[in-house]
Amino acid sequence: MKALVYRRPGKRQVEDQPRPQIASVTDAIVRVTTTTICGTDLHILKGDVPEVTDGRILGHEGVGIIEDLGSAVTTFAKGDKVLISCITACGTCDFCQRGMRSHCRSGGWLLGHTIDGTQAEYVRIPHASTSLYKLPAGVNEEAAVLLSDIFPTGFECGVLNGRVKPGDVVAIVGAGPIGLAALITAQFYSPSRIMMIDRDLNRLDCARRLGATDVFDASRENLVEEIMALTAHEGADVVIEAVGTRATFEMCQALVAPGGTIANVGVHGTPVELKLERLWAHNITMTTGLVDTVTTPLLLKFLASGRLRADALITHRFGLSECVSAYETFSDAIHQRALKVILRNDVSAPA
Amino acid sequence: MKALVYRRPGKRQVEDQPRPQIASVTDAIVRVTTTTICGTDLHILKGDVPEVTDGRILGHEGVGIIEDLGSAVTTFAKGDKVLISCITACGTCDFCQRGMRSHCRSGGWLLGHTIDGTQAEYVRIPHASTSLYKLPAGVNEEAAVLLSDIFPTGFECGVLNGRVKPGDVVAIVGAGPIGLAALITAQFYSPSRIMMIDRDLNRLDCARRLGATDVFDASRENLVEEIMALTAHEGADVVIEAVGTRATFEMCQALVAPGGTIANVGVHGTPVELKLERLWAHNITMTTGLVDTVTTPLLLKFLASGRLRADALITHRFGLSECVSAYETFSDAIHQRALKVILRNDVSAPA
Amino acid sequence: MKALVYRRPGKRQVEDQPRPQIASVTDAIVRVTTTTICGTDLHILKGDVPEVTDGRILGHEGVGIIEDLGSAVTTFAKGDKVLISCITACGTCDFCQRGMRSHCRSGGWLLGHTIDGTQAEYVRIPHASTSLYKLPAGVNEEAAVLLSDIFPTGFECGVLNGRVKPGDVVAIVGAGPIGLAALITAQFYSPSRIMMIDRDLNRLDCARRLGATDVFDASRENLVEEIMALTAHEGADVVIEAVGTRATFEMCQALVAPGGTIANVGVHGTPVELKLERLWAHNITMTTGLVDTVTTPLLLKFLASGRLRADALITHRFGLSECVSAYETFSDAIHQRALKVILRNDVSAPA
Amino acid sequence: MKALVYRRPGKRQVEDQPRPQIASVTDAIVRVTTTTICGTDLHILKGDVPEVTDGRILGHEGVGIIEDLGSAVTTFAKGDKVLISCITACGTCDFCQRGMRSHCRSGGWLLGHTIDGTQAEYVRIPHASTSLYKLPAGVNEEAAVLLSDIFPTGFECGVLNGRVKPGDVVAIVGAGPIGLAALITAQFYSPSRIMMIDRDLNRLDCARRLGATDVFDASRENLVEEIMALTAHEGADVVIEAVGTRATFEMCQALVAPGGTIANVGVHGTPVELKLERLWAHNITMTTGLVDTVTTPLLLKFLASGRLRADALITHRFGLSECVSAYETFSDAIHQRALKVILRNDVSAPA
Repeated sequence: MKALVYRRPGKRQVEDQPRPQIASVTDAIVRVTTTTICGTDLHILKGDVPEVTDGRILGHEGVGIIEDLGSAVTTFAKGDKVLISCITACGTCDFCQRGMRSHCRSGGWLLGHTIDGTQAEYVRIPHASTSLYKLPAGVNEEAAVLLSDIFPTGFECGVLNGRVKPGDVVAIVGAGPIGLAALITAQFYSPSRIMMIDRDLNRLDCARRLGATDVFDASRENLVEEIMALTAHEGADVVIEAVGTRATFEMCQALVAPGGTIANVGVHGTPVELKLERLWAHNITMTTGLVDTVTTPLLLKFLASGRLRADALITHRFGLSECVSAYETFSDAIHQRALKVILRNDVSAPA
Repeated sequence: MKALVYRRPGKRQVEDQPRPQIASVTDAIVRVTTTTICGTDLHILKGDVPEVTDGRILGHEGVGIIEDLGSAVTTFAKGDKVLISCITACGTCDFCQRGMRSHCRSGGWLLGHTIDGTQAEYVRIPHASTSLYKLPAGVNEEAAVLLSDIFPTGFECGVLNGRVKPGDVVAIVGAGPIGLAALITAQFYSPSRIMMIDRDLNRLDCARRLGATDVFDASRENLVEEIMALTAHEGADVVIEAVGTRATFEMCQALVAPGGTIANVGVHGTPVELKLERLWAHNITMTTGLVDTVTTPLLLKFLASGRLRADALITHRFGLSECVSAYETFSDAIHQRALKVILRNDVSAPA
Repeated sequence: MKALVYRRPGKRQVEDQPRPQIASVTDAIVRVTTTTICGTDLHILKGDVPEVTDGRILGHEGVGIIEDLGSAVTTFAKGDKVLISCITACGTCDFCQRGMRSHCRSGGWLLGHTIDGTQAEYVRIPHASTSLYKLPAGVNEEAAVLLSDIFPTGFECGVLNGRVKPGDVVAIVGAGPIGLAALITAQFYSPSRIMMIDRDLNRLDCARRLGATDVFDASRENLVEEIMALTAHEGADVVIEAVGTRATFEMCQALVAPGGTIANVGVHGTPVELKLERLWAHNITMTTGLVDTVTTPLLLKFLASGRLRADALITHRFGLSECVSAYETFSDAIHQRALKVILRNDVSAPA
Repeated sequence: MKALVYRRPGKRQVEDQPRPQIASVTDAIVRVTTTTICGTDLHILKGDVPEVTDGRILGHEGVGIIEDLGSAVTTFAKGDKVLISCITACGTCDFCQRGMRSHCRSGGWLLGHTIDGTQAEYVRIPHASTSLYKLPAGVNEEAAVLLSDIFPTGFECGVLNGRVKPGDVVAIVGAGPIGLAALITAQFYSPSRIMMIDRDLNRLDCARRLGATDVFDASRENLVEEIMALTAHEGADVVIEAVGTRATFEMCQALVAPGGTIANVGVHGTPVELKLERLWAHNITMTTGLVDTVTTPLLLKFLASGRLRADALITHRFGLSECVSAYETFSDAIHQRALKVILRNDVSAPA
């Protein structure tokens, strides 16, 4: 089969690979029909994720058709169209029982990380019963693929960790796909104001269309003062960090109101400075989190009912065979005005 | 009247000062019978708290007798014995309504900070209805004075912010009075293990007597590895920072388990390093907080029923007239084996 | 001044009464500019509320102008336009500190109940600091008066007690003003479905306009079976009882899903039957509650921002001098198609 | 093998039955070494549980050794000593994902109810991965068997549903095994007072030894008035119903304080009267629940550390071959002073 294979930093290519087979009674083999590329995939290509080694098929998002099932998987049938969760979870270990599937003792983020992933014609999914979701009838497949990772991440790590409540002032630093997913799902809780901050004016336009009440060019001088003035110098009840840099985390600390929450979603490569000399007395809460995907069923329900505009984040479409071009577009997101880049399986016949 | 007056960094002395008078209908004047010295008072003396200016009477803890009342204070009567909260709260502003009295719009930490405090024969208490608590009959007055600040601080900012639950592994970094107050009140929730970490072996002995299951000399090499090994390399569900330094905050980050909480109680003078490059994916929560004293009635109830061993933290007693000696003892806490130093009003007659 | 005075069951009339005066330092005197009639006022007239005695001025809702203030009330000034809360709260007692203002030791529901109320030119408000809310600029006064009681009641006792969450199926039994207020405020939490049940088709039309996804004629046979079929025989996650009869409470029990909540808002005059022989194993939660009005500031904020369509419930307007006609209209709500009936103070000059 | 078989109301006997076999890849076969009898088993024998039909092996509690495993069960090995949960849970359905295992789509209470149970030499456990718990080393097996049902039931349905908090006044109506399990586990949260109410003075003595602060003979006249007087006429913050009759549920309603919670644990055969004409305005919460056994790992941890005195409830011991005598003793609990009756597998050789 065709698959996008990581070889070394900077080097990935479409290669012929053997089709995966059932290796455990709890596995499923899924024929991937739609997948996408995540910012994390770009980090991997830079060599930032040392667990990813030569020969790994990338990708942790996808929708597909169940081709084969281990004998212990009784809740799906061959031919079912399913959403593949970016988190593989056994459902039985202590972390899974606490709802912390991201830290599953035999799961977590495996796909395209420590086992082969979804940017391929077929993928093996361990713990299939608790790592796949049947796609409800009528759900748009391209929109659904955004529920593999970015929507649960924005919702759980941003909105739920941030405890957005009716009437809250919310600030989201970063208007990339994750920040926009947080923006969309924050509206489930009727905040009074959602302020989006980014350097990319195109993304800010998108944010405004998707419900931001205020947008701010992050490169503007005195930005923090300006935002504080708009909130009567109180700051934001919830600040969502959706970038992952020292500077953006610092902005979050400047914007959070006493009693407020900073929900970190961004992936950080280095330590940040925490201004405890000021914040120790501000009664704030700060959260971090890899997504647990416990809200995937809820998000699918919203998608099926037409109330979740996930497809608003799709800007480009490619065939799986054009995977390299898709990576180039996504890597140059600002100039290409790219948010999420869809990859459809266009390979003519099963390999 | 006699009072301990701050003059400039390093300089404080017992002076004669005019007795305070009712200035607002919501005030009370309290004759202080017992007070104590807080670590924060030492910070003030070092000049670390610039809001405290020349001439300020220090002290934010105390028990006393109501001498006079503003006309709007109807829930107390002259002669009532009361506990003075370290937090003055109006009870009506938005922060007070949210239970965030530490940030009361016309209150917060005022005593011995921006208005005259309790290390005096008399003190004026604004917003008396919501800043004083009638002492239940039979309550030991010296124990009660520890409920002005350190017990609600350890309980609210440590135990409650840390969300200690039955069965949890708790680590408390710092076995000073606040850390010990957290140790004592953490036991309300039946954690399975409470580990105390400090450099002072005397304080660790005290911790063990007060319920710590494990105590650790903070100066030991490989301490983090040792503790991690004891927790099957999982770490602690709740880590309470009760010191306020860069190094202790770093230790807290090393000890917290995935899904755990770091509750910061320590007063920090400088920023700290937050290791988000590791913690971003560990689903942790970090909290900060100045005490809101919303649990004072509960703590008084426990004290009255004999279930809160607050007096176990009292090591020294002085008369108010010996206030300077008391400060010297408390400043040299390690050598003096001092925890809390009680000051009894021994001035013969009202000035 | 003119006032609507209760004399005995069935007997109320507009009378001349002395203007109220400041009786305590915490009082305010408010010149009522707008008031309204509550279903509870009809209960009183029937003699169902024995605490209401001959001579009582009725009414517990209103907006007005502060005419006079006790010396302890510092957060308002004469001339301020204020919302009068149906709950009078001291803000300092144990219940108020817990946020349970409905059970305030010296407050609760006093107005038009145990002290004179708002259906008059002037009213005395005890505990004014914590029982009045300054009206934000630009807020429609008629809409605001619905925030004295029915909106906080529908929101707190229905939506918040019911813990409505994104995606929930909500059923509201009763489409009167309180049920409709619950319908409007439930939408803050993005339930997937809100089903309204009432016998009055006019009210069901109104419910549909205000966001109900499904409406049901309560008099239809097999109604419960029909609703259960629509929810795949699971039932509703949240059922809000907004009527107050044995039959409607029974319907709520039939509709609640395992793991769901019944939030009782209705005022009941007699015991009901609780089907514990079925529900004991259904893991349900049932709540009751008199409104605490702790969400009034939030609701005012929503009203000021144009996001709360409170005025959609206003169907009739009268002058205060036409108070008797207003009662007649409201008493005959079904035929008059009445929801909330506004009373404007049209008395030419202050008495 | 030997097993206790239900035949018809009033008729149960030890019979020879075929040994159960693996029927699904997720099954385990457990050789039962210790089991016990539950009050529910007595209900079954009376014919109150029509789902239990002729030929059913009774029992839903037990400890044993894994004899055989389906191919999908990877977290246990043959020879492991395990606790059998009274709730069988798939771990993957929507209810299990919400933590509501009692309502598992393919599980719930199955053992000794709709499939053969544990009062036998061997039992088949479906969904073994999520329905068995490895027994920690050193745990007393007889104590552990009380964690199959009564301890998680008392803790989850009583203490957790009741939201017992430090300082609370708790009243427990019913001092049978479940009520006593609630008494023991309520102490994890340091309530200030735990009042136990029962007609059996022997059980009240036991309650006092296990931590009750006050015990009351339920047959005493004016009992409610007496208890109310002891709580300054406030009532109890948490009332736990652990009997299951109309009269005891009525007592719970009389005892609950405004703002309090009634947690129903008792199994009710008939509707009860809910006094909404009084409680509608008392801001109470009422919960029901079949146990979800989500706290079993925590309770095992407490048991292993010696902090859970589960064995204090054991009063009698029998061999499995004496099962009929054991039922007779347990059925006559009051005269026999029986709480929990242990059944050890004394059958000489595997059948």
